Amino acid sequence: MADISEGSTSSESRAPWEELAELIQRGKGARRFLSTLPGSETVLAISRLPEHMQTQLFTQLRPDDAADLMEQLPDVAAVEIVEHLQPDAAARIIHELPSDEQADLIGELDAEDAEAILAQLEPQEAGDVRTLAAYEDDEAGGLMVTEFLAYRESATVGDLIEDLRNNRDIYADYDVQYAYVIDKARRLIGVMRIRDLLLSKPGVAIRELMIRDPFFVEDHTPIDEVASFFEEHDIVGVPVVDAERRLLGVVHGAALEAAMTERSDNDYRSAQGIVGGEELRTMPLMLRSRRRLSWLSLNIVLNIVAASVISAFESTLQAVIALAVFLPIISDMSGCSGNQAVAVSIRELSLGYVRPAEVLRVWTKEICVGALNGAVLGALIAVVAWLWKGNAILGLVVGVAMLVNTMVAVSIGGLVPLVLKRFGKDPALASGPILTTVTDMCGFFLVLGLAASLIEHLR
Amino acid sequence: MADISEGSTSSESRAPWEELAELIQRGKGARRFLSTLPGSETVLAISRLPEHMQTQLFTQLRPDDAADLMEQLPDVAAVEIVEHLQPDAAARIIHELPSDEQADLIGELDAEDAEAILAQLEPQEAGDVRTLAAYEDDEAGGLMVTEFLAYRESATVGDLIEDLRNNRDIYADYDVQYAYVIDKARRLIGVMRIRDLLLSKPGVAIRELMIRDPFFVEDHTPIDEVASFFEEHDIVGVPVVDAERRLLGVVHGAALEAAMTERSDNDYRSAQGIVGGEELRTMPLMLRSRRRLSWLSLNIVLNIVAASVISAFESTLQAVIALAVFLPIISDMSGCSGNQAVAVSIRELSLGYVRPAEVLRVWTKEICVGALNGAVLGALIAVVAWLWKGNAILGLVVGVAMLVNTMVAVSIGGLVPLVLKRFGKDPALASGPILTTVTDMCGFFLVLGLAASLIEHLR
Repeated sequence: MADISEGSTSSESRAPWEELAELIQRGKGARRFLSTLPGSETVLAISRLPEHMQTQLFTQLRPDDAADLMEQLPDVAAVEIVEHLQPDAAARIIHELPSDEQADLIGELDAEDAEAILAQLEPQEAGDVRTLAAYEDDEAGGLMVTEFLAYRESATVGDLIEDLRNNRDIYADYDVQYAYVIDKARRLIGVMRIRDLLLSKPGVAIRELMIRDPFFVEDHTPIDEVASFFEEHDIVGVPVVDAERRLLGVVHGAALEAAMTERSDNDYRSAQGIVGGEELRTMPLMLRSRRRLSWLSLNIVLNIVAASVISAFESTLQAVIALAVFLPIISDMSGCSGNQAVAVSIRELSLGYVRPAEVLRVWTKEICVGALNGAVLGALIAVVAWLWKGNAILGLVVGVAMLVNTMVAVSIGGLVPLVLKRFGKDPALASGPILTTVTDMCGFFLVLGLAASLIEHLR
Repeated sequence: MADISEGSTSSESRAPWEELAELIQRGKGARRFLSTLPGSETVLAISRLPEHMQTQLFTQLRPDDAADLMEQLPDVAAVEIVEHLQPDAAARIIHELPSDEQADLIGELDAEDAEAILAQLEPQEAGDVRTLAAYEDDEAGGLMVTEFLAYRESATVGDLIEDLRNNRDIYADYDVQYAYVIDKARRLIGVMRIRDLLLSKPGVAIRELMIRDPFFVEDHTPIDEVASFFEEHDIVGVPVVDAERRLLGVVHGAALEAAMTERSDNDYRSAQGIVGGEELRTMPLMLRSRRRLSWLSLNIVLNIVAASVISAFESTLQAVIALAVFLPIISDMSGCSGNQAVAVSIRELSLGYVRPAEVLRVWTKEICVGALNGAVLGALIAVVAWLWKGNAILGLVVGVAMLVNTMVAVSIGGLVPLVLKRFGKDPALASGPILTTVTDMCGFFLVLGLAASLIEHLR
């Protein structure tokens, strides 16, 4: 790390993180320096600091500045920094975060680290964080914040204005367009626009202004339903209640959309074989290697199983060695065709364009595309084989294999996500390996089996 | 379509879209029926209607109800419906949409359809839509709405309250937490919280209350910068100005996050071979087939090129037919390893964890993981080969090929997204085919080349 901490005279060529490291070591100026960096450079600079300097930085900063900075980092990076901080320093920073981010962070720590930090918070705050952290990421409770305005129905416009005035600092960071109206048991009974307060006299009771029977979702409502709720009602936030309709929090549209982005990103990474959350290249080598291997080692076993089909046809291959050229082509193209069908199924499931039970509908739609595309690809590869070896039967074998296997691939690709979804599994994670293994086996069997049965025309 | 339109006596077993179709034909009750469906069922029901019934439905509904419904549909579906409506009917619905959705919709229509509809709108509104539609989807202007509150600095708190009262209906759908303060030339000079109005006397000029020099972004600011701006400043919306700092609109956090989700989804679909936007199975067969084929036909050509390496080694394969079993395994596993590196690079680029120019850094990080994982996978496949054929040299050949090719694959997978990004190309779309072609060729060459040079030990 000497290259980072040693001062350099040419400040022109220095990267921001080198300058930052120097300021951290001097013990002052880091905050001011960070505030001069554009947002994306801030994240970059912090990620490039060695671990102990990240810890030093977050200990040096005022807790509210540290919290602002932490909110900019990706979750995995924030978790790692918190793990290395002293529990009391971590608690001071976490105290400054909005409630949903407190819960996300605490929820991702080891149980031991989490408890050490919670012990340093006020019992009331610690309890709230615990409650929020217990929700899943994909239900309304996991998306809500507990920073909201709620008043009893008997309160007057004047009372609200008084409260807003007195708690100006506390409410400064609230996303406030609505105030919720609750009864004695904290049950949600109404909602009102803050701006409508402007149009009323101070003596008016808010029960006169509120909209009765407002929209709400329950804390365990799945994220997909919350999303379609937002689309249906064109709202900026929705209150969250428990089974007794007691007001627990508010889900904001931006938080919902952020969670949807997170899920899309995870789907993409899962499909590409990044399992168990995300990987950043700042993570330790062994961790990165181990996580990637967990996926690769499953795949290689499946690959060996699929390739064992080839070994059963060694004599056919021996007789017509040209077939070996077409095996990887059939395998790869079936994977491509199948993955297209997987992507469309995952999309339709998430849009609500198809129900997981509609297997027949999806299959009918896929098999038509598969037959068309298989015919085109099969004809193409058949002509290549024919021209190359001057043997029309060889062309026939690889062409028919391509046609049939494309139909198999789109069928499996289209249906596997539906079936996985129905059994509550993640379609993006598991569809790929299932698809490639089955289509590989089937493709190898088709090429070599057809060749074996037409062997006298192929020699 | 007879099965949909004919009334059935057993309403128990009828799908919602069958009931909806009947109500549309009767010409009444469709709106009420739709309002009883949960959000996700609404989208499903409409997507299953035949085209002419969708048109009929959107013509029957009141324009504001039709607009609410249209907002729930995926963009491609909404575009298709608008294309089939009469221009005047379409214009009445579009008039009711928020400005950003107007622009999105008009922007995706054929130029001719768009002009026909714009001609039916008020010239002022048509001009605004045209301006918004001209922005790219990935810049601030493409995300903003033009529904916002702006006042001159000389206005008083009383003036604002008066305006809010008089225009209550117009502002009802606005997402209003802030009012913007502008000078004579419409340049942005301040911002104020609506709720702070509650704490002030009517006679106070808003220049006394406003925050001077507020945050803003320019209309052509790329979406990534807007996103890091939001993360940095923890805000719910940001004003958008032109090069002269004239106020043009506002980007809300939820709209930004929605655009980010859209982009993640597109990345995922691109990587899976769904090019040119999205595919829904309600689209015509020929369109779906043609779009998928555009990707597949490129891939098959690349595959044939890669497999031609195999044909150059036919005599080696003939001598050691067992090699044919390992070719698809090496090809597939290299693809897996490389795709993991692609996913990590795309993630790091989008988080700002790496700059496109940092090729050496990424390569150093990848080659280490590649060496480790390649060694593990190579050892595994070597043992399998050795045990299967009792030939240690065969194990050596496939093991070394796997090791080296894994290192090649992670290098290419890690670097290609950086290079594509640097040249302004979409990394998710093009990384896959480049990766698999190069690693296939290299893998085949390694296995067969090594085997050829050790041929006397392999027979």
